[in-house]
Amino acid sequence: MRLDVLGETALLRRLAPIGYPEGAPLPPGDDAGAIALGGGALLLKTDGFRASGVRLSGMPEEALGWRAVTAVASDLLAKLARPLAFVLATFLPPDAEDATALAWTRGAARAARAYGAALLGGDTNRGEPALAAAGVGWAEDPLPRGGSEGDHLLLLGDRWGLSGAAIDAHYRGLDLGRFPAIRAAGYWPRARLATLGLLPFRRWLSGSADSSDGLAETLWQLSEAAGVGIALDRLPLPPDLRAYADAAGVAPEELVLYGGEEFEAAVLVRPEGRALVEAWRASVGVPGTWAGRAGGPVGVRYRGAPLPRRGYRQFGPR
Amino acid sequence: MRLDVLGETALLRRLAPIGYPEGAPLPPGDDAGAIALGGGALLLKTDGFRASGVRLSGMPEEALGWRAVTAVASDLLAKLARPLAFVLATFLPPDAEDATALAWTRGAARAARAYGAALLGGDTNRGEPALAAAGVGWAEDPLPRGGSEGDHLLLLGDRWGLSGAAIDAHYRGLDLGRFPAIRAAGYWPRARLATLGLLPFRRWLSGSADSSDGLAETLWQLSEAAGVGIALDRLPLPPDLRAYADAAGVAPEELVLYGGEEFEAAVLVRPEGRALVEAWRASVGVPGTWAGRAGGPVGVRYRGAPLPRRGYRQFGPR
Repeated sequence: MRLDVLGETALLRRLAPIGYPEGAPLPPGDDAGAIALGGGALLLKTDGFRASGVRLSGMPEEALGWRAVTAVASDLLAKLARPLAFVLATFLPPDAEDATALAWTRGAARAARAYGAALLGGDTNRGEPALAAAGVGWAEDPLPRGGSEGDHLLLLGDRWGLSGAAIDAHYRGLDLGRFPAIRAAGYWPRARLATLGLLPFRRWLSGSADSSDGLAETLWQLSEAAGVGIALDRLPLPPDLRAYADAAGVAPEELVLYGGEEFEAAVLVRPEGRALVEAWRASVGVPGTWAGRAGGPVGVRYRGAPLPRRGYRQFGPR
Repeated sequence: MRLDVLGETALLRRLAPIGYPEGAPLPPGDDAGAIALGGGALLLKTDGFRASGVRLSGMPEEALGWRAVTAVASDLLAKLARPLAFVLATFLPPDAEDATALAWTRGAARAARAYGAALLGGDTNRGEPALAAAGVGWAEDPLPRGGSEGDHLLLLGDRWGLSGAAIDAHYRGLDLGRFPAIRAAGYWPRARLATLGLLPFRRWLSGSADSSDGLAETLWQLSEAAGVGIALDRLPLPPDLRAYADAAGVAPEELVLYGGEEFEAAVLVRPEGRALVEAWRASVGVPGTWAGRAGGPVGVRYRGAPLPRRGYRQFGPR
């Protein structure tokens, strides 16, 4: 079947189990792969993209390398793994300038450092401009996608929808001069290192998923893996997002649900853990939104209505 | 500077130190990157390529995934690291068939298994057909590129020049029906897992390099890192290689020195360790050739004459 007919979600579902070890600390198809090591788990993840697919107007080249490492770091962090090291494979045409390769690598190195990890080199190739980062992390007890009836949904972070707004502005040709926070989120998305602050509460966490394809798709994936529905009753709507949405004439909810690329984490917390997690979050100042509960049949509902599944489409329809 | 003017070797030399940690178990620019972990070293490596750049006539799609993992495994093994896990990022156009993605992944999974490791998933992207594998391994005491005056050069393995011959046949349009070993080496190159058999002799090893760009380039890299010359006095010339070279009218030495892609290891052994390493090699039946000695100024000589440096050129001149 052609990939644009099959779609990326269905393709990945078929590819994920191939060669994946039985009884691994994380199941195939989760945000990262894992093997048991040293009484915990070693996580490995790769993420690739064409430069033209993520480059926003005015974006510095360094930001592409930053994004490559950030996307992988976010997957590791959402599983409660501490990032250890990254590598970067790049493709560039022969008439490209070395300054581009240097900028991509510097951006990747800066991101690795921001997540407490090293950049361990990479590989350069001739080809249309593209990047593929890989990263390794270690977790004592990695948190899979999962959840149970009654769990509370915590959307960590305060950048929900901001990268989506930057992408929206790019395609509309809107200038972001008045919205520096949105431009920053679009150019320099950040994985949430503070997710590791959840480690002491691991026993009360039942699952998590990294949000890179938009919140709707993220929650659909979490719901499917958990075998339980998710009922959203509140969305994080950062003030900068509201202001942009107002100016651009779009619904801010649309940007949060379908914008993507925020690299925040959606976490399901057992009811008996909510107060503790909330106390941690409030005391250390990690932003977050308690956005709903798990329950009912697989799928995602927002204020009672089913939430359509449409995220970023790599090859076409899903 | 344009990449085709600068060349890949010079480019990688500039990129390798960026973000690379000080005092790491392997220096920047070695065959793999490493950080200290668990009393040893965790190694991470990535290698990417366009499908069109490595696809030989008649090559099954599965072989591309196999090659992606093999190239990374070979780098880990040359550093005496045990491969633990791999991931595979792929690029394919929307009108590609899912069978291609499945075949690439199956090939990668088979290779991972062949090297005693797991395939931990990957990532699929729209783009011109390309693959980037990454792999992680663990070594108690990784073996860097290095060496000292007087060391003996051991070229492990018996597939030197065979992949080079397959590539040569591809570009000449020659049929390999009469040379199944060469076709097999071209389609299914194998990283030498038996390199790990050198572990008990670690104290007598002073350096090693994975051979993927041809023996001449490999020895040049080893010589530069060691700060000492390498004098080759013998080349491994497998019988299949001689037969092919004879039929094709090329010098077999040319294929060994400049063919590349054999994924064998070149190891420098201290004089006092040679007899022990040789006893191991002979007793377990690991093929290999004692091909020369380290000595003199940086550079590579073959039977007294300087060996020109010209390997695979990713972007153009080096």
